[in-house]
This record gives sequence, C-alpha cells and structure tokens, in this order.
Amino acid sequence: MAKEQIFDIAQLAHVEIYSPKPEETLWFFKELLGMEETTREGQSVYLRAYEDFYHHTLKVTEAKEPGMGHLALRTSSQPALERRVKELEASGYGKGWIEGDLGHGPAYQFETPDGHNMELLWDVEYYTAPENKFSKLLSRPQKRPLRGVPVRRLDHVNLLANDVTTNKNFLMDQLGFRLREHIVMNDGSEAGAWMSVSPLVHELALMGDQLGGRGRFHHLCYWYGYPQHLSDISDIFVENDIKIEAGPGKHGVSQAYFLYVLEPGGNRVELFGDAGYLIFDPAWKPITWKEEELDKGIIWYGSQLPEEFFMYGTPTIEKAKV
Amino acid sequence: MAKEQIFDIAQLAHVEIYSPKPEETLWFFKELLGMEETTREGQSVYLRAYEDFYHHTLKVTEAKEPGMGHLALRTSSQPALERRVKELEASGYGKGWIEGDLGHGPAYQFETPDGHNMELLWDVEYYTAPENKFSKLLSRPQKRPLRGVPVRRLDHVNLLANDVTTNKNFLMDQLGFRLREHIVMNDGSEAGAWMSVSPLVHELALMGDQLGGRGRFHHLCYWYGYPQHLSDISDIFVENDIKIEAGPGKHGVSQAYFLYVLEPGGNRVELFGDAGYLIFDPAWKPITWKEEELDKGIIWYGSQLPEEFFMYGTPTIEKAKV
Amino acid sequence: MAKEQIFDIAQLAHVEIYSPKPEETLWFFKELLGMEETTREGQSVYLRAYEDFYHHTLKVTEAKEPGMGHLALRTSSQPALERRVKELEASGYGKGWIEGDLGHGPAYQFETPDGHNMELLWDVEYYTAPENKFSKLLSRPQKRPLRGVPVRRLDHVNLLANDVTTNKNFLMDQLGFRLREHIVMNDGSEAGAWMSVSPLVHELALMGDQLGGRGRFHHLCYWYGYPQHLSDISDIFVENDIKIEAGPGKHGVSQAYFLYVLEPGGNRVELFGDAGYLIFDPAWKPITWKEEELDKGIIWYGSQLPEEFFMYGTPTIEKAKV
Amino acid sequence: MAKEQIFDIAQLAHVEIYSPKPEETLWFFKELLGMEETTREGQSVYLRAYEDFYHHTLKVTEAKEPGMGHLALRTSSQPALERRVKELEASGYGKGWIEGDLGHGPAYQFETPDGHNMELLWDVEYYTAPENKFSKLLSRPQKRPLRGVPVRRLDHVNLLANDVTTNKNFLMDQLGFRLREHIVMNDGSEAGAWMSVSPLVHELALMGDQLGGRGRFHHLCYWYGYPQHLSDISDIFVENDIKIEAGPGKHGVSQAYFLYVLEPGGNRVELFGDAGYLIFDPAWKPITWKEEELDKGIIWYGSQLPEEFFMYGTPTIEKAKV
Repeated sequence: MAKEQIFDIAQLAHVEIYSPKPEETLWFFKELLGMEETTREGQSVYLRAYEDFYHHTLKVTEAKEPGMGHLALRTSSQPALERRVKELEASGYGKGWIEGDLGHGPAYQFETPDGHNMELLWDVEYYTAPENKFSKLLSRPQKRPLRGVPVRRLDHVNLLANDVTTNKNFLMDQLGFRLREHIVMNDGSEAGAWMSVSPLVHELALMGDQLGGRGRFHHLCYWYGYPQHLSDISDIFVENDIKIEAGPGKHGVSQAYFLYVLEPGGNRVELFGDAGYLIFDPAWKPITWKEEELDKGIIWYGSQLPEEFFMYGTPTIEKAKV
Repeated sequence: MAKEQIFDIAQLAHVEIYSPKPEETLWFFKELLGMEETTREGQSVYLRAYEDFYHHTLKVTEAKEPGMGHLALRTSSQPALERRVKELEASGYGKGWIEGDLGHGPAYQFETPDGHNMELLWDVEYYTAPENKFSKLLSRPQKRPLRGVPVRRLDHVNLLANDVTTNKNFLMDQLGFRLREHIVMNDGSEAGAWMSVSPLVHELALMGDQLGGRGRFHHLCYWYGYPQHLSDISDIFVENDIKIEAGPGKHGVSQAYFLYVLEPGGNRVELFGDAGYLIFDPAWKPITWKEEELDKGIIWYGSQLPEEFFMYGTPTIEKAKV
Repeated sequence: MAKEQIFDIAQLAHVEIYSPKPEETLWFFKELLGMEETTREGQSVYLRAYEDFYHHTLKVTEAKEPGMGHLALRTSSQPALERRVKELEASGYGKGWIEGDLGHGPAYQFETPDGHNMELLWDVEYYTAPENKFSKLLSRPQKRPLRGVPVRRLDHVNLLANDVTTNKNFLMDQLGFRLREHIVMNDGSEAGAWMSVSPLVHELALMGDQLGGRGRFHHLCYWYGYPQHLSDISDIFVENDIKIEAGPGKHGVSQAYFLYVLEPGGNRVELFGDAGYLIFDPAWKPITWKEEELDKGIIWYGSQLPEEFFMYGTPTIEKAKV
Repeated sequence: MAKEQIFDIAQLAHVEIYSPKPEETLWFFKELLGMEETTREGQSVYLRAYEDFYHHTLKVTEAKEPGMGHLALRTSSQPALERRVKELEASGYGKGWIEGDLGHGPAYQFETPDGHNMELLWDVEYYTAPENKFSKLLSRPQKRPLRGVPVRRLDHVNLLANDVTTNKNFLMDQLGFRLREHIVMNDGSEAGAWMSVSPLVHELALMGDQLGGRGRFHHLCYWYGYPQHLSDISDIFVENDIKIEAGPGKHGVSQAYFLYVLEPGGNRVELFGDAGYLIFDPAWKPITWKEEELDKGIIWYGSQLPEEFFMYGTPTIEKAKV
C-alpha cells in the first residue's frame, strides 16, 4: 500500500540573491516591480512584495558574481521541522543549524545533491505596516504601492542541476515535494521537473544545466495574478532599457502567463500574470512531456524562448566547460 | 502545545443541485458557461468544466424546488477517508456508506448540524477525452470548448446556516477545515465564515440564514481566472436575459473578482475572475472583519450587493418565517 | 439634398478646472493618475497625460469653488478656425479673441447658451520630452511614468445644461458636432446628448441640470484603454481614501468601461477603460434611448450610478433652487 | 499656404478574399472568430462581425488561389463620391462603375498603381437583426454571438506593393488618406506606410513586396478591443491546429496588441486586442522609423515576427521571381 503523503513543508519562504550591482538591482525591484525595503544590514537589503506577509521574501546581497545565496522553506509546524531535520541529517546533506537571520528564527541549513544552499525554518517574523501604510483590506499586509507595476508575492524558484532526477528524488524523498510535471527525453533522462508542496504546480523547479555547472540558479518568480500587468511591466522594461528575455507568452507546463527579464545584477527574474492551473487532486499523476511534445509544453502560445534561456544561469560559467 | 494540522480532506469534488427547470438550467451551464455534459441517468445530468479532471463536478437533478442535493469532499487518501469516517460516526452526524454514484466509488454520507447533505469519498473516476476533444496541453483534460465563455473548474460552495459558529466548528473539528476569514458582529456572533483545506481562501463558506431556514444553499462558484471573462459573461448574460444579481466587483473577503447570477432553475451561481489571494502561511491567523469594517470586507470596490443577496437562498422560504 | 458635413473642429484640446484645494488636486492627478506637470504660472498648474501631445490638456486653477474654467477645441486648420469664428460672431455667443495662454496661440472665446466658457484655437505648442523622458516608442511623446496608474490621454467633457436641446443644437449648428446618442423622455424632452467630431462617441456630452443651475460642469474623462487599469486605479483610490462614486461598470451609451471619482477639489473625474465603440459610418443615425430603455442605456452591466450622479455638479448649488 | 485636408473618404467598408478551401475558411471565420453569415450567392459567402453595421464586411469567394478580390471604401457623402470619381477618372486608374453587389449600390472601381482592386461607394445596406438576435444595447446591431471568441468589427487592410511611395502618394493624393507612420530605409526608400482617413492609425497600410509581386495581399484585420481576447483566441487556435504566425505582442507602429494567423484558405488575418493610439491632431506629422530604430517600431514587446511575415503574401509566388 502506498505511503501517505508528507505534509511537512508548507511553502517557499524567501530567497537570497547575489548582485554585483546592488544599487541597480534595488532600483529594479523597488522602482519597477514596486517592492518594499524592510531593512538593510551589512551588505544585504531585505525586500518584500506588498502582499508578502513576512519580514522579507527577497534578500539582495552584494557579491562579485550574481547567483542564488540560498532559499528557505517554511515547515508546517515545529514538529514537522524536527521530522525533516532528522531526515536531512540522516541523508548526509544536512549542514547544521544557524541561530536565524533578520526576519526569522533558527534555521537548518542543507544543500541539494547539486549543491544549492537551502534552509528549513518554522519561526518567522511577520511584517507589520506603519500607520500610513496600513490597508483597510485586512488580508493585505500593507497598502498597494504607487511605484512601478507592483508584484504581489513570491511564487517560485527554478534551479539548474546537472542531474535532474537525483535532485528531484532528493526533494521528493527528503522534503515531501510532489512531482507535478516533467520532461522526459527519448533517452529516458529527465530534462526538467516541476514540484510543489501545495496546489501550485511548483514552488521549486529543476532544469538540466547544459553547461555542466553545479548549484546554479535559473530564476526566481514573483506573482501578479493579472495578465495585463505583464503587458504593463513589459512596457516599463522597454522604456527603461531592461532586457526582456522572453514573453509575454503562455507556458504549457504550469499553464502560466510568463515574462522573463534579467535584473541589472544579472539574475533572471520571471513574472507570472495569472494563476496557471492549480492541482487539488491528491492522487495527481505527474504529467510527462515527451521530447516530441516538448514545444507545446514549453510555449503554448506567444513569445518563444531564445537559446539563451536554456544556457544562461547565474553564476555565469564558460560555455567551454561543457 | 498546539495540535498539528489535519490534512485528511483534499478538495471539493462535486456538487448536486436541484432544478425545477432542468432544460433551462442545462442551457445555462452548457451554452453560456460552456460546460460539458458527461452523461445522463434518471432525472440527473452530470456536467464538468473543461479543466475539471473528474467525471463530473456538477450534477443537475430535476426537482420541484431549487436547492443543493449534496456536496462531496475528496479525502487525501484511503486511510484519511477511514480516519474521518471514524470521527464522523462518533460525532453523531454520520449517516452511513453508499456504494457510489456515476463517477465515484463508495462514499460516506453525513450532514452538518444545520442539515446540509455532504459525503466523503476517495475513489473517483477520471474524465478521458475522446480523440476529437483531446488537448495537446497535457494538463488540460480536454480542448477548450467553443461555446459561450467557458468556465475552467469548480471553485467553492457557500451555505446558509442558522448558527454559523456551530457549523464552522463542525467543519474544522471533524474535517480539518482551517478558518481563513470571518465576520464577527458587535454582539460577538459570527455572521459569516470562510474555510479551506488548501491555499484557497475557501472551498466552503457559511453565512447566517437571515430567514431562519435550515440546510439552505447560497451559491456554488466556478472559476475563470481572468477578469475579462467576468465582463464577457456579463455581456452574454444581459444579452440573454439572465439576471445578474451583483458584480462584477472585487470582494474584500478572499480578494476575488466576483459576479453573482441566478441560473434559470433559481439557484445562485458565482463566477470568479481571478485567484484572489492564496494562503500558504501554515500558522495563518483568521482575519476578523468587525461590524464597522464590514463594508470594505464585503465589497472592496465595484458593484454593491443588493439586500436580496443576504436573504435569498434555495430552497426559497417565506420571509414571514423569520 | 442634405448639407455636407462640417469638418472644421478636430478635437478637444484642453480643459481648465477650478480647485479650492489645489495641492490635493495636483496630488490626485500626479501621484494617482500619473499625470505630468508641464509648468506653473500664477494660480495655475498645467498638466498632461503621458500620451497627450500638446503642452497641456488640463489646467488646474486655484479658486474658491470647484467647476470648469473653460474648455478649448482645436480646429482642423487656420481657415477652419476663421470660418467658425465668423459663425460664432454671427450667433451672438462669441466673446472675442485672446492672445493666447501658455501652450497655445490666439483663441476665440465664446459661451454656450447655457453659459459654459469655451474657446477655439488652431495654434498649439507641442510637448517635447527632455532626454531622460524620451521614449523609443516614437508615437509616445514621453516615457510611461512610474507613478500611480498613469492615464494616457484626455478623452471628453460632460456638461450640465438647463436645456439640453438648445445647447446640443448650438454645438451641432455652430461647430459641426454630430449627435451620436441621446436620451428622449416620454414628454419629448432630451435628458442627455452625446456628440462628437470624430469616431469617438463623444468629445462633448450634455446632461440636464436637475438642480436648475447654469453653466455647470459634470465631469472630464481621461483614457486608459485597458479594462484592468480601472480595477488597478480603483484599488489605489480605496487605499488612498478617494471616493469612488460609481464603477467599474459598462455604459450602454458609448459602450465604455467607466469609473467615476471625485478629485479632492470636488470635481468629478471619469476614467475610461476601453475604446467603447467607434463610429465610422458617415451617415450615422443618432441612437435614441427612450425612457423605458434607459436603464440599459446608462448601465449595461456592473456598478449602478447613485442618485448623486444625476444631481451633483460643480460649482455646487443649493438643491432648494430647483 | 497648405491645402486644406480632404474629408471625402469615411471608412473601409468591406473586403473580398479568395479561398481555395471555402468550407474551412468559413469554419475559421464563423466558428472560431464568431462571425455571422448574412447570405450566400454563387461562389461567395457574405459575413460580418457582430458590431459591423452593414450587410457585410467580408466576402469570401471560392477561387483557385488565395488573395484579395477587392476592397471597398465608403465616401463621406454622395457629392464626396462624385468628387473622388472625377479625380480617379483623371488619374487614369479608374475602371468604371458597377451597379452594385449584395449589400451596396453603385460602386466605382479602380486599381492602385500596384494593381490592387478597390472601389468607392456611398449607398450601403444596413444589417437588421431578426428578433431573436436583437440586442437591447442599441449601438450593437445584434446580440453578441455564443460561438468562439467573436470579433467586433473590421479594422484595416495591409497590402504588399512593389513601390510603396508611389502607391502611398496615390492614396494620399487621389483619396485624401493621411500618412500616419512610415519606415524609411537608409537609402531613402520607404519600406512601409500606414495611412488613415480617421483617428485610427490606419485603414490601409502598404509594405514593400520583397518577392517583387504585383497587387498582392498581406492581411486584413478584425478588432477585439480587449487584450484578453488575443490570449483566448490564441488558445482556441492552438487547440484547433490553426497556425499562429506571430503574437500576441505589441507593435511599435500603431501601438496595437496584435496576433497574426493564417486562415485555412491561406490568407493572413490579424486580430487587434486594443485600440492602440488614436490620432486627433489635425496637423499630425508622420512618424518616421529609420532603419536603425526599426526593431522597436515593429515589435515594442512580445512575440517577434518570423522571416515569413515579410515574404509571404497572397497569392503566393515563387521566391525565385525576386
């Protein structure tokens, strides 16, 4: 009889990205995407979208190279945290506890087989709006900003991995992620996998690193929920010389309206214009895109993805390394 | 220490409504809302939206009076079903097993304290599209229809109850629903409660029955996910003499773009134009709308709700009974 | 044989409104509607939307009472201006030439039978963006602003009049406006008239002043062109305690998606979320809404208009005067 | 002193296209684009969009090769028609009068220097809805259809021409079209020109025929006015194996949201998702896109145009002829 589902991970809580151009990166997230700065400390600035409930969902840290510092997953409870840590310790991928950071308490650090830094945590600090930002819409932690085309909340992260299958299995077995969709090539290898712990099609995705790098970052995604906002922010990007890599268009995988853009620090950012489809079926059978069906899986309609989309990640590496 | 969350109920699976005008009701759901007929048996017709994965999400049964026949919740697993049945049996609200219906296997029937008929089930039949309706979008169980403005999936049900608090507690304690938002009047009574087992703000809502009825139905809701579709279907409704009760507008509670309409059989149907907001916080504190904040909670902006909205439910009863 | 159409008036060029709270009025137009300030002189500030091509389309002048200072129509050519001035002089409603104002050259002033101040002009100053606002979209006179939900261009003006028919005839006969739609009551009187010199359904509308005032202003309208922006700006208005009078909804007359709001100085502002329908038929027969069809003419669907909509204009007057 | 503007042409009235697969072409326009069939005669079927006011805007005629049969322009009046015919006769491009066709009276035929067949007419037959299609929205000639994603009205035609400048001058000088935007290459030649007789950026466009053909057709365009409908119809096209050539995206020229598709007969059809920008300035200076600015002029953002877009027209010709 099938094991029952693990419900120990609740959500993607925050992401840290590195930027060699922190001022331009902050301008991008604050003035164009309308994000709010919570605080600064050392070489880091903490940001959140206006419908993010916690202290921050994005930490921008100055560094020589772009890339992902780490990402954090919040568990469903304190006991759930303890259960997962026990598993991670046994897996050999655990690194140990830190006392916390601005915005959250103790966190257990680990890395994926591919070398991406992640942490699990339970204790978080909620954002509380000052009086002049308090919204009468009680489910909104603050007023909608008047700057740019403001994003609403963190949605997901996409990571490059040398071996999609191994890393997918790690996330499923250790953390309870469910596989929602994946791409299986004719040789049987997995080229991409989309996984979630909620009805979202993914909080985490993995794509094969075609340059053979390790622990690289493909993109993070913030959510609008309204297709028009992808058009609006596209307009803003073109006006402000921000390179749109692809979109707007509609993905087959996830069914989401997407836009890809490179923030000035060099990291790829995706924006979602709708909710795509949501999965409530508790016995969901993963959707398998075969090599010959792949085109529709990647782009259902609209703007195509350039070659760069499948090669470029952060930190950047030499193509020659392939 | 707080008990850990119950994850035994996965989703709202289907709803049965009664219609005294079944032909007109079917015309409404099929020609205007673009729903698909799966099959007919006896006095019932089984329908689904084009992105509903199971055999049906709506069963329309001919009857003298409009109202809700029953609603079905799917559990997270077979063991989860057994756990919940055990609790329901102990609660005194259980009614017993049925062998199943078209589209699903054994189901355990129970009623809420207010008298709404519900059932729990695990075993479901999936819809399989015939070749001419097969979609290359593999997460879509069939092609998008060419009729009307087609809805995508069942979203939620709203029930009238004499005593919101008692019924809310029943759903939370017996089934593991989480309270997401509620209205608390100055005298301490609850006028409405929105509850879910997923990041949706609600699969089930309860509102006080101001006419003092028992087991009455307020509305069911199908989901579009795109605000424009509320405008499009409004246009269609006005052209076809279907009474729009309220909307389009934006609710405070749930943040959703809404439209309310009466189908020809007399039941209220809501349509959702976006995803509203989604709740991923595992320690969510219910949002409390006080009497003096209620206006913004009900309507954030747009079309107001008429008095009728708060009084009319199905089956209809005499106002004099109040 | 029918006289040929007059093509001497080309467009609505600008509007001057009075505000007793100029700072708040400017905050409204600049921070919420994203308008740009061109210049200030004396008690006036000159503004334009980011796709308005001329020096300004809105002049906000400090005054004790809200209301419209004047509106300006641009002719199709210099000879067209001269032809119209000759007619106006003959009509007895002409007032004479002024040398010009910031942003335009000589203008001929006149008033309507109801006493609204208008002017005709040909010579205008074009807006030229400074380098940092220059847009690569060559049909856009400047970059899209990053403030609020920016409006794109001035659309139309709606005036209250004691006698709709007389004023309508004046605009048609003296200036060549075409009647597009009107409301005719059962007693034969006209309650409203929508007129244009272009495929727009109206640059000027007249509605009966139910309080019996003279020369009063009902509203001016700026254009978005995208329905989502009415939702976005509604959200912004509610967050910032700006009173939405009505909308979003869809008018029958003009078919436009509308929103009505009172700017802090007390003048009504409308926002248009789409293009409605456009009239290219050179032999257009005016659409007549009878008293019994009026409901659909005013609101096709969505938010209803409150009683206030039909009574309130600026300057405000005592209801007792009726 | 500048000559005054000619206002003799009012609008694009209808287009005739040839189809080698008339049944499939009709299925495309009726079932997917929701158009209505007015009548059939001989090898032709007459269609209109639901907000087109006349008998038809599209005539589909069975033929061996796809292409444009002719297009018709309606004049501003009977005298305007006579003035233009006199000019055309003098130009040497006039062909003479026909008695009329279904849906209109006498028409004067002519051809452009490049050989496109056009006609001028004044007398038209209006569409009158049968009772079951009568709309209470009085500016809508019939109810909104329930089939597909229905287009609202004919917007414009784009023609290929060997010599853009000569044909542009013909349309401007003989008919009074105003040049709104054009592409001027570094060698001074014009590669494209967009012209109108109304605030629309174009009812007629010309693009250089890179295959050196004569009198070829590039596309006709129907109008939605709502961006979401481009997404909706894209979804429908992909589901029904209709090839989307490009889009959705936003053009720089005209600022319109576009989608290009090939109907089953082989003709290119464009769909417009918004109104773009409208030109009310009577002294409009044409916008000139230089070769090095061209990318933004063609695509402001979104889906790029494939090479095919610039080569393929109907009837198709051998590339070798270049």
